[in-house]
Amino acid sequence: MVNHVQLTDGAGHLSKGDSSGTSSSSGGESSKESSRSSTPVLDADRTDRLRDKMRRRIDSGDKWFSLEFFPPRTANGAVNLISRFDRMGAGGPLFIDVTWHPAGDPGSDKETSSMMIASTALNYCGLETVLHITCCNQSKERITEHLKKAKRLGLKNLMALRGDPVGEEWEEEEGGFSYATDLVKHIRCEFEDYFDICVAGYPTGHPEAENYEQDLKHLKEKVDAGADFIITQLFFRPETFLKFLKDCRAIGISCPILPGIFPIQGYQSLRQLVKLSKLEVPEEIKGVIEPIKDNDAAIRNYGIDQAVDMCKVLLGSGEVPGLHFYTLNREVATIEVLRKLGMWREDPRRPLPWAVSAHPKRKVEDVRPIFWASRPKSYIYRTQEWDEFPNGRWGNSSSPAFGELNDYYLFYLKSKCPREALLQMWGEELKNEQSVFEVFTNYISAKPNASGNKVACLPWNDDPLAQETNLLKDQLEKVNCRGVLTINSQPNINGKPSTDPVVGWGPAGGYVFQKAYLEFFTSNENVTALLKVLKKYEPRVNYHIVDVKGKNITNAPDMQPNAVTWGIFPGREIVQPTVVDPVSFMYWKDEAFALWIEQWAKLYEEESPSRMIIQYIHDNYYLVNLVDNDFPLESCLWQVIEDMFDLVNSTVEHAI
Amino acid sequence: MVNHVQLTDGAGHLSKGDSSGTSSSSGGESSKESSRSSTPVLDADRTDRLRDKMRRRIDSGDKWFSLEFFPPRTANGAVNLISRFDRMGAGGPLFIDVTWHPAGDPGSDKETSSMMIASTALNYCGLETVLHITCCNQSKERITEHLKKAKRLGLKNLMALRGDPVGEEWEEEEGGFSYATDLVKHIRCEFEDYFDICVAGYPTGHPEAENYEQDLKHLKEKVDAGADFIITQLFFRPETFLKFLKDCRAIGISCPILPGIFPIQGYQSLRQLVKLSKLEVPEEIKGVIEPIKDNDAAIRNYGIDQAVDMCKVLLGSGEVPGLHFYTLNREVATIEVLRKLGMWREDPRRPLPWAVSAHPKRKVEDVRPIFWASRPKSYIYRTQEWDEFPNGRWGNSSSPAFGELNDYYLFYLKSKCPREALLQMWGEELKNEQSVFEVFTNYISAKPNASGNKVACLPWNDDPLAQETNLLKDQLEKVNCRGVLTINSQPNINGKPSTDPVVGWGPAGGYVFQKAYLEFFTSNENVTALLKVLKKYEPRVNYHIVDVKGKNITNAPDMQPNAVTWGIFPGREIVQPTVVDPVSFMYWKDEAFALWIEQWAKLYEEESPSRMIIQYIHDNYYLVNLVDNDFPLESCLWQVIEDMFDLVNSTVEHAI
Repeated sequence: MVNHVQLTDGAGHLSKGDSSGTSSSSGGESSKESSRSSTPVLDADRTDRLRDKMRRRIDSGDKWFSLEFFPPRTANGAVNLISRFDRMGAGGPLFIDVTWHPAGDPGSDKETSSMMIASTALNYCGLETVLHITCCNQSKERITEHLKKAKRLGLKNLMALRGDPVGEEWEEEEGGFSYATDLVKHIRCEFEDYFDICVAGYPTGHPEAENYEQDLKHLKEKVDAGADFIITQLFFRPETFLKFLKDCRAIGISCPILPGIFPIQGYQSLRQLVKLSKLEVPEEIKGVIEPIKDNDAAIRNYGIDQAVDMCKVLLGSGEVPGLHFYTLNREVATIEVLRKLGMWREDPRRPLPWAVSAHPKRKVEDVRPIFWASRPKSYIYRTQEWDEFPNGRWGNSSSPAFGELNDYYLFYLKSKCPREALLQMWGEELKNEQSVFEVFTNYISAKPNASGNKVACLPWNDDPLAQETNLLKDQLEKVNCRGVLTINSQPNINGKPSTDPVVGWGPAGGYVFQKAYLEFFTSNENVTALLKVLKKYEPRVNYHIVDVKGKNITNAPDMQPNAVTWGIFPGREIVQPTVVDPVSFMYWKDEAFALWIEQWAKLYEEESPSRMIIQYIHDNYYLVNLVDNDFPLESCLWQVIEDMFDLVNSTVEHAI
Repeated sequence: MVNHVQLTDGAGHLSKGDSSGTSSSSGGESSKESSRSSTPVLDADRTDRLRDKMRRRIDSGDKWFSLEFFPPRTANGAVNLISRFDRMGAGGPLFIDVTWHPAGDPGSDKETSSMMIASTALNYCGLETVLHITCCNQSKERITEHLKKAKRLGLKNLMALRGDPVGEEWEEEEGGFSYATDLVKHIRCEFEDYFDICVAGYPTGHPEAENYEQDLKHLKEKVDAGADFIITQLFFRPETFLKFLKDCRAIGISCPILPGIFPIQGYQSLRQLVKLSKLEVPEEIKGVIEPIKDNDAAIRNYGIDQAVDMCKVLLGSGEVPGLHFYTLNREVATIEVLRKLGMWREDPRRPLPWAVSAHPKRKVEDVRPIFWASRPKSYIYRTQEWDEFPNGRWGNSSSPAFGELNDYYLFYLKSKCPREALLQMWGEELKNEQSVFEVFTNYISAKPNASGNKVACLPWNDDPLAQETNLLKDQLEKVNCRGVLTINSQPNINGKPSTDPVVGWGPAGGYVFQKAYLEFFTSNENVTALLKVLKKYEPRVNYHIVDVKGKNITNAPDMQPNAVTWGIFPGREIVQPTVVDPVSFMYWKDEAFALWIEQWAKLYEEESPSRMIIQYIHDNYYLVNLVDNDFPLESCLWQVIEDMFDLVNSTVEHAI
């Protein structure tokens, strides 16, 4: 889906370049603060700036990889790229970078702009992100505007490039820059040490450079102007890079130099790339791929093997601290190479039960309301204006002014499924409330519905059931088919190791705990019975029950959050990353109710019976959350629901 | 020990009075804040002001008691009174009050002043405290000075009295006040609503009043001037109070009116009191006590029964929300009366594992370093200047600037034992380090030492072993006799009910947890072995090892506190009231080392062998703390010590 042709104008410094020059050492200073630790899980990995992370990993010999992407051409492409960020982020890249796409209005708010894609990777996918920026054909002022915007969005790293002149003739923009060196100087001049700056290196010399030596001198100039590290243009032989590295060191370039790895993924893309970058493909490679040029799979397999072999030599040299991959926005080849190198993180350790944002302001954040567990991007969006994030506890500090969520069209909030697919999953035509119960039940059971389609998502859950929720699958299935429409739940956990593959999070050697939680929509009739039943479970069970108008029934204190997930770790304070917070619940309920209409009802014609059924549920059902405080015992929440059904049935029988 | 004769000038409004007057309703307004809860265990009971606490308990029908004390005459008396506050505070009084003692420099910083005793009760014993203040013979300015000081010390409640003129002649102080009403008005005028104000009521009329009706009018005036509640002079018959109460209500006094209960404790004290207060002892009482006037025990038992009978009638009337006891600074009779009434809290529920201070500024405090567990008053003293107290976690906020502790002479920090008793416990003469080991061992075992004395305290522990520490008694005994001189420890706890009588704390329905902790002094030789042994226990065990000069060996992060006590409660965030904090440990170690010299070495002559032994330990031993992070498993700390001893022994054997 990611348009391959974009390679021509989207691959930024991969296929194009800047020309610049010479001399001394980089600015890789550590910015360690000696103040008291401000949050129990705030590892250096979360607080350090990129160059410090590199420094630490170089010191400890812990090799890293990074991934380069280009901005997509369509909104749909953006939605898909964001999902790819989530999937590839799981493998543990040290950073990703997004190329600057001059033809694509790169600094704008369009969902396909370089700026927006980089911001989304950082803010919504939690990835350390490097934004490319080019200086040719742009005024100084325009560049400063872009940089200010990047800073405002939380971006802290730049790849400073010259970029390509438009057309054949090279013409300096009036009041602009001719060289990446000038851009680096400008960034340092205007923003001092705020940004970490990367520059490009050319192992075989920049195509426009006078000669290799001259090009090395340009590179040294860029570093001396304030660049922190170097990523190289692609190359086909490890010795090309190693010689370049040696030459860089010889003239006094001491910052990290990362080889750009390009796994060959197809005959056409290679040809195009080579043409643009004016590189020579070595005979030994040509000799292999020419005969198989029509066999995509064979070429890709060859590309993987070739990249793996080259990376092994590079890593084996002891001179290469990390590998930079030109992904061409594709997953398979790069992941395969990384897997074969043993660098792909197969067992992602979560620092917290939810995905942490990489925005500098949010780095201390370590507690969130549980309600947005399946909609973390919406939570980030609605809290992006907060000046401070709850750190350690959900207390006074977080007087929650949630932003409105009317922007269901935003690409990072949008469902990955098109309308047609949604209708196939949720029903072309709904007959009654029971039809809706079945959709929920099919989602839980992961069995195909009547029309043979699996229900892979719901308006409240854009992904299939989480592994953890799977622990509750049988019970969830039973209650959903009877009209307890669950949208969020977690089992109780009484001290499992923090390394547990399903429920674990945080550093090793700790223990994680949870209170059982269940959140669902259900009818007025059920709620009436439930309220009677809940009296028996006081004070063990806390509940909040609310309808779309905000009528709120609860036995919990008004302002008191209830911690429902916490962890105990060696040498640390307690971490309690999720809470049931009565105040935020009222913001969440607006969103939860609105999703019925925005994501589901609107699939159908106005006035259609299907739409009216969803509208009826929206108008009449209650949103309920239940917490079983007695986490060491077996959860009583299923019994609560069972008792509720019993009471409803006995009332019905009495009525008869 | 508390000097009884002081009754004549110390019992304040008990035996003396003020004369004042008439009219309408009290200022019992609630000051509930509607902001978000700022701390997980901050119950209304901790945040409300006294009048709101009364209001809530009246509404819920939860009857209370309060206790009146007078300031002692000697420093030794002050030390004892403070211990009595701790013991009587355990029974759950709603407040205590301290009389104003004009002859005792009551507003000064002397340890026997009314001001200091009240401040200590509030700040160091965590008791809601009412300070008496009288206005006669004092200038307005002087009174304002006293009130400002009281406010500065955190006192929020006053008992406003006229006091007695000096000598026979009544002479108004120039620029002073003649009546308690004026004092109440002055307090409201100068301090607005800051203080809760109590005034005195006279069930049989003030001795100087024209008549009973006139006296009631004066009382109404005091209430109208801004008093919040009334405590009455003592009386001997319940109907006296109930009639008075009815009459007060009839003229429109609507604030709480608390009967002053005086359990007769001795023939002489009763006679003296009656003379001063110009009260009549009813014939039925005289008839009983005259024949037994030389039998103190019999009179006390009678006094208890008489008080119990009277209180039952009062409480039974449904008109009496609380009882106020004139304790005469004695424990037995009052506690006995309260026990018989079922009002003495036999099973004190601790809101936190340590005693919470009642200072308004400290109300949010809910986490402390574990080091001062046995010296909470020292901790309060050393942190009294803090502007904020850690609330929820021990983080950035608490950059700990601890005050110096050179003031070992301060009465609230002083040992209850005189030098002679200490020498009997800790040895008239020490022969060697082993003699010191024996003192520690005897303290733990609670067995008499060689000279037949029990070691009831140590410089680091002013009380016998806590119940909780008793769980570790056998192991502690074993290691102390071998020179691991323990001064603080707690067992690991993996989720016991918060109502557990030994380790429980916080509201019911919760679970409490602990990591095993051990803190001790030991020799350089042992530490050398310990450090080798600890390598085997990484990262399970965190340690800090420090000598008197501050040489610090640790495997814990510099700035990271380790939570070692925490609790999980229904509907709340996690509470973590004790931490091992590396920064505060360095302040604690100064105090811990200094106690060797200040409290122990200085008992002996300079240059004496005993003193030199303690000095040697002070100069050469290390202070060690160990945390076993793996709280669900059996503590490994005893094995660590065992391994250390094994290693020391094998080294010795090798040397041989």
